Amino acid sequence: MKEFEFYNPVKVLFGKGQVTKLNELIPAGSRVILIYGGGSIFKNGVYDSIKSSLKGFDLTEFGGIEPNPTYETSMKAVEIIRQKKINYILAAGGGSVIDATKFIAAAVPFNDGDPWKILSEEAEVKEAVPFGCILTLPATGTEMNKNSVISRKSTEEKLAFSVTPVFPKFSILLPDAAGTLPQKQVANGIVDAFVHVTEQYLTYPVNAPIQDRFAEAIMITLIEEGPKVYAKPDDYEAMSNLMWSATMALNGLISCGVPGDWSVHSIGHELTAFHGIDHARTLAIVLPGLWKTLKEEKKAKLVQYAERVWGVKTGSDDEKADAAIEKTEKFFRSLGVGTRLSDYGVKKDTIDRIVKRFEDRKWLSMGDRGLTTPDTTRKALECQL
Amino acid sequence: MKEFEFYNPVKVLFGKGQVTKLNELIPAGSRVILIYGGGSIFKNGVYDSIKSSLKGFDLTEFGGIEPNPTYETSMKAVEIIRQKKINYILAAGGGSVIDATKFIAAAVPFNDGDPWKILSEEAEVKEAVPFGCILTLPATGTEMNKNSVISRKSTEEKLAFSVTPVFPKFSILLPDAAGTLPQKQVANGIVDAFVHVTEQYLTYPVNAPIQDRFAEAIMITLIEEGPKVYAKPDDYEAMSNLMWSATMALNGLISCGVPGDWSVHSIGHELTAFHGIDHARTLAIVLPGLWKTLKEEKKAKLVQYAERVWGVKTGSDDEKADAAIEKTEKFFRSLGVGTRLSDYGVKKDTIDRIVKRFEDRKWLSMGDRGLTTPDTTRKALECQL
Repeated sequence: MKEFEFYNPVKVLFGKGQVTKLNELIPAGSRVILIYGGGSIFKNGVYDSIKSSLKGFDLTEFGGIEPNPTYETSMKAVEIIRQKKINYILAAGGGSVIDATKFIAAAVPFNDGDPWKILSEEAEVKEAVPFGCILTLPATGTEMNKNSVISRKSTEEKLAFSVTPVFPKFSILLPDAAGTLPQKQVANGIVDAFVHVTEQYLTYPVNAPIQDRFAEAIMITLIEEGPKVYAKPDDYEAMSNLMWSATMALNGLISCGVPGDWSVHSIGHELTAFHGIDHARTLAIVLPGLWKTLKEEKKAKLVQYAERVWGVKTGSDDEKADAAIEKTEKFFRSLGVGTRLSDYGVKKDTIDRIVKRFEDRKWLSMGDRGLTTPDTTRKALECQL
Repeated sequence: MKEFEFYNPVKVLFGKGQVTKLNELIPAGSRVILIYGGGSIFKNGVYDSIKSSLKGFDLTEFGGIEPNPTYETSMKAVEIIRQKKINYILAAGGGSVIDATKFIAAAVPFNDGDPWKILSEEAEVKEAVPFGCILTLPATGTEMNKNSVISRKSTEEKLAFSVTPVFPKFSILLPDAAGTLPQKQVANGIVDAFVHVTEQYLTYPVNAPIQDRFAEAIMITLIEEGPKVYAKPDDYEAMSNLMWSATMALNGLISCGVPGDWSVHSIGHELTAFHGIDHARTLAIVLPGLWKTLKEEKKAKLVQYAERVWGVKTGSDDEKADAAIEKTEKFFRSLGVGTRLSDYGVKKDTIDRIVKRFEDRKWLSMGDRGLTTPDTTRKALECQL
């Protein structure tokens, strides 16, 4: 493996009843804002638990964070926090709410012009408003990392940032609250977590057996537990396993000392930006296409993945790689997640637009060994028409 | 899985050359004490790297921390730190040096009488002198946790404590420095890390597939990489994998939401206390004995371990469990680590003394489901005469 640094100070509290500890986790006397999304916290009981635990705190509420959270909505929260001199944020919901909260937390004290520069110019984030999270949807892993992805409606852009000051102080993970999720969101979460793992695993071997086996552990668990949760979101044990898998998939651990790819995400983000397709569903389209296109370059890892994750023990290396790609695509489809552009009514002209955008941005060589070029991007998407 | 909390704020810097970052990791102007053991840091180049990186720092040195570090030696360092108003500790060496440093760091500001009470009475540790570590010996995992074990010569006691203020601020892991270790210490490290995993894994199933597979990942890696490092400690890649395995084995991750045992350690500590046998070697004796004694109670996990870690796919459950125990014992012996009391000249009277001590301390029901009693302790040790 390569040299690396690992640091993750997020305190995780996992399972039923942990919300009662909120009033110990948030410093006494804090002026708190509760940030949430479309209102699921009113249905799954989380809102009531929060109110009950934070009795006596000065609590402001800000709802309406959308899936693919926007700069525009986030800036409204920034305004309120500045106005009311709020000094602690509590995010309750899924990955979008937490991602928005990270941007909001960094934007409030930002004094170098428009906070959008944090995303567009990697402007330095020196500090952030401290915040904690209550996670009710297993998917993105944002509850235990310093990453965030924000969209800007006015420019059809979707950009990411990753800085130490936006590590959550704590994250409470609630598999029971996730039990009320619609099937579609559960499926998205499974696929999202799965592709997070492949982005850090399916590159080339560097003799890092712990990292490889941890990654395989997460994928095998998602393959085993995913269908159970998809069939019955209120299966508490299976949802617990899905939730912990999704957190482990992107908390920095499995990427220690190994190469990453992340170009499936880069391409997928454009499908969301142009067509509003759910993030996870864009990944389910792009991943198999990119693997088919880069099969030779990624073969060693594809074969290892076929053998260890899918139990494919016979056939040539080429056949094993093909089988692994096919099984992955079938797995996604079994969760009701389409893996073809046609499943979403997207046609060839979108491929042209994405390729042109990458060329315009001079994104000419991305991901694992720079293998994702405008040309391989086109081929990957054409495989999935 | 059960509800759990996980928190580990240790910053890990892994691999060659990371020592050059010391002067950024330790706050400028700190008055630093370097704590080390028997002097290996002078042979493996670590001392020179430290001196070079910490040029300009006020640096005191304190060597001579022994294997199974003692209260007596540690208190000498406490005295110096108090006298010289030192405010940062740097530990360089193996697990013993780091464990001693944790006790020293907690003892310096302790003002409730004799700091031994931290171990003997679980006296509260409110604060500790901040410290960082340079690890040159993969084994105990102490570099990324809040645990420490200290021996007291005068009373032949060996006790543990675990408190948040003694998390290292950072740990630099140096597989290259570990390349100069004698084979015997490498073997001890492999066995120590392996048994740390089994203490958190080999209990009973609680439907925690991520934790189980992570544990299995570490054990399989130790079985594969251990013999390579044992044969050639300066195999940098294999040593890197051993070192990361040992850290992952005891940083709190694989114990999230699952039951633990730790009675192999409790029994093993007495063998060290009475006979000075290396910690890891005591574990290699006790583990197979305890598994033989509690085979029925632990059978579900023994079978899973046999199948997934050792690839034992045929035979009855009982045969699989037997095979797993036998293979474990053979693995330890292949590293030159004796698994029988007779390998160390220990006779039956020691068993009587240990059982009596447990009875005197009212340790009548320890570990996994309280299965380790004076009676099963006796049987476990008798299996290994």
